[in-house]
Amino acid sequence: MLQRLMVLATLGLAATIAAPAEDSLLSPAAAATAAALRDRVAAGSRASDWVKDLNDLAGPRLAGSPGDRAAVAVALEILKSQGFANVRAEKVIVPVWHRESESGEVTAPVAQKLYLTALGGSIATPAGGLEAEVIGVRSFDELDAKKDALRGKIVFYDVRTARTRDGSGYGTSAVYRGSGASRAAKYGAVGALIRSIGTDTDRLPHTGGMQYDKDQPKIPVAALSIPDADLVARLLERGKPVRIRYTLDCGDRPDAESANVIGEVPGRERPGEIMLLGAHLDSWDLGRGAIDDGAGCGIVIEAARQIAALKERPRRTIRVVLFANEENGLAGGKAYAAAHAEELARHVAALEADLGGGHAYGFSWNAGPGAQATFKQIAALLGPIDGATLTEGDYGGADISRMIAGGVPLLGLLNDASTYFDIHHTANDTFDKIVPKDLDQATAAAAVIAWSLAEAPASVERIPAARRKLPW
Amino acid sequence: MLQRLMVLATLGLAATIAAPAEDSLLSPAAAATAAALRDRVAAGSRASDWVKDLNDLAGPRLAGSPGDRAAVAVALEILKSQGFANVRAEKVIVPVWHRESESGEVTAPVAQKLYLTALGGSIATPAGGLEAEVIGVRSFDELDAKKDALRGKIVFYDVRTARTRDGSGYGTSAVYRGSGASRAAKYGAVGALIRSIGTDTDRLPHTGGMQYDKDQPKIPVAALSIPDADLVARLLERGKPVRIRYTLDCGDRPDAESANVIGEVPGRERPGEIMLLGAHLDSWDLGRGAIDDGAGCGIVIEAARQIAALKERPRRTIRVVLFANEENGLAGGKAYAAAHAEELARHVAALEADLGGGHAYGFSWNAGPGAQATFKQIAALLGPIDGATLTEGDYGGADISRMIAGGVPLLGLLNDASTYFDIHHTANDTFDKIVPKDLDQATAAAAVIAWSLAEAPASVERIPAARRKLPW
Repeated sequence: MLQRLMVLATLGLAATIAAPAEDSLLSPAAAATAAALRDRVAAGSRASDWVKDLNDLAGPRLAGSPGDRAAVAVALEILKSQGFANVRAEKVIVPVWHRESESGEVTAPVAQKLYLTALGGSIATPAGGLEAEVIGVRSFDELDAKKDALRGKIVFYDVRTARTRDGSGYGTSAVYRGSGASRAAKYGAVGALIRSIGTDTDRLPHTGGMQYDKDQPKIPVAALSIPDADLVARLLERGKPVRIRYTLDCGDRPDAESANVIGEVPGRERPGEIMLLGAHLDSWDLGRGAIDDGAGCGIVIEAARQIAALKERPRRTIRVVLFANEENGLAGGKAYAAAHAEELARHVAALEADLGGGHAYGFSWNAGPGAQATFKQIAALLGPIDGATLTEGDYGGADISRMIAGGVPLLGLLNDASTYFDIHHTANDTFDKIVPKDLDQATAAAAVIAWSLAEAPASVERIPAARRKLPW
Repeated sequence: MLQRLMVLATLGLAATIAAPAEDSLLSPAAAATAAALRDRVAAGSRASDWVKDLNDLAGPRLAGSPGDRAAVAVALEILKSQGFANVRAEKVIVPVWHRESESGEVTAPVAQKLYLTALGGSIATPAGGLEAEVIGVRSFDELDAKKDALRGKIVFYDVRTARTRDGSGYGTSAVYRGSGASRAAKYGAVGALIRSIGTDTDRLPHTGGMQYDKDQPKIPVAALSIPDADLVARLLERGKPVRIRYTLDCGDRPDAESANVIGEVPGRERPGEIMLLGAHLDSWDLGRGAIDDGAGCGIVIEAARQIAALKERPRRTIRVVLFANEENGLAGGKAYAAAHAEELARHVAALEADLGGGHAYGFSWNAGPGAQATFKQIAALLGPIDGATLTEGDYGGADISRMIAGGVPLLGLLNDASTYFDIHHTANDTFDKIVPKDLDQATAAAAVIAWSLAEAPASVERIPAARRKLPW
């Protein structure tokens, strides 16, 4: 075994690019190490502790906020205290959006307080609020059909988010959050409201990023909590005109400095080759970022820490990157890909954990076809912890997606997201939502994936040159 | 059968007082009618519609508020539109407490926003807020043990509420809400906070009534949401002094006018004898009073409506009473008992529905021992809808409890309260929390109980004279 490893080692970088698939498979001994790692971590880890520290000591950490600065300090402290190497904060300039206050109410045909929250990126309303009649629509098609009735009105997008294990319900409805305001403004609407992109029934609205179309007037946009969306929908059904007033004090501020926080477990043979474990350090401002993405931070920190605790460090370096500003700008992911552009060729893969702290039922992969055999082997290793689902495609996660330019194989941890969108982007994103045994299992999965790719004789086939572009 | 009924009818009032137990049993034919009523209502009713109307058209309805006035109008409209007789609003003078705004934050050792809400009855803080170090206690015993450390501090009562089917967990913890402020003030504390009296994990604090001890200084008191209570508890565990600032703008206002809303289904033989179905019309101000006590209103309105829809009205009158001001004063219950003092002798029983809209697994009763056989017969009728649990004792419900002075048998509908205290007294008390099939089943139970007691040949034995006092 040792001999074979030595031979491969002498092949150097060439092996990482053109190796046949079988060379990136784990030996039986290595697979046994991975299995032991899996079982040890799944039986109990400190992943929850790192989430708790971020939740308690930093709390909400929207890019450029005091909480964001606190989070950088907390993350650096965790990585240093846990013995990571090359711990550093790599500067990132981030956009800043801030929320001061927000309120809303139905003013006709009855008076009812509404729980709502500005979408991230929204402009403010006039100080006294914006009041108009509400027109409800359930799709962009319905919006288009009602276009002549929207001038001076508030458009209410009443679109439900389906509960799914893979989070696909979010993809379907979140487009209304992203572009609903500008599409309504195009027809003369003065405001826009959406049913929260969520699957709960709490009076806690879901914020999230929105983008203005530069060719349309900017109008203030907010999300109603699900029960409040229900109320407005029922009042509309009752047939009398419904009027709403809402007041948002929020908006953009000058860019600020934040950081990608990085720590490493240096490889024993090829320290210049990187297996990247990523999550994002920032969060929306309403909750404490426990599941989004404290959970991911806990998973990747702990996975690397558990790998470092093995008798022998893996062949390649494990690099943990806690990205800045995923939520409203992706400045951290962009900055990392740019600053490390030349090094991307030596990133053997990147795995992102940004789908909460639920049980990891598998992972997605996007790489060259020759990589499939390795991922199948890793998935099989995750079978005993019910994590063997393998899906091909996607881009791993927003933060790592920009590394596609370098052909870096992109992996995404597939946490069970059945309840994720009950909490996501709300004030309810707090530490109590972490289920330690699920987080430990997800951490075990991430550890096995990272260790396997850091240890395999050859690295897996990279994303072919023809596919090294994001479709958006 | 008819002959027997006629004989009993001629006995008049005497029969309602001293009848042997067997005379208050239902005949087989009457029991069959009750069973048919049960099955029809449980299969589907309009109970949810009445809750929806109160939720949507009145919303929050704290005594004396605009929503309270709206609720009186909505309730009158429902009763009139559904053909009730003698529909009326009986004037009640209610205390008024109002909430304008509230906020709070941890200021040391970290900065964290807190979701909190003033307890009903609390005084305001100074306009700029109240800030002090926090001392955590888990019981009054611990408070007493720490009494020398409380001067100038904020006491935080960190007492958990147990999830139970019968709601007994609430009884154990709510005492800290009621008297925690004054007991802390006695030792020089300047403020008090409690862990919300609730079983959820939402950032939605639970309000509820508190009372000041007239011999102690009044200090402002608020409830932290459960996740925020968790955070404060964890920060205290970390060992550094924890400081909190909170600002409450709230307080008492002059008394106002509200009303008990009443409607009847007149009895066919003894219209002067009353079977009372009660719930409370008011609610706390944070939610829309769907489960507390819109559900109870829906149950009793619909139970009576379904009884009225039978081929034949029952022997006695069914009187629906939607009480004012249960939450912060009980003025409605007191006013009813006073205004109807002379009529209480002709109230054959009162049943209150004030434990949410969950499945009714039975009912409690408080009456003379001779009544037990009748209640057992009624409970058996509820067996097929899983509602046969019979518990002896208690006072039926806060609103009807004052009728004990008249010896009125007091019954309480036992809804499954397992999830009730997730929602109770929070902003989350909204219509979506109503499960129509459970509400229908509970309505069926209330209808059977009310119809049976209104129809039985003789009324059940009343509460003996020696027990006609409340223990508080």
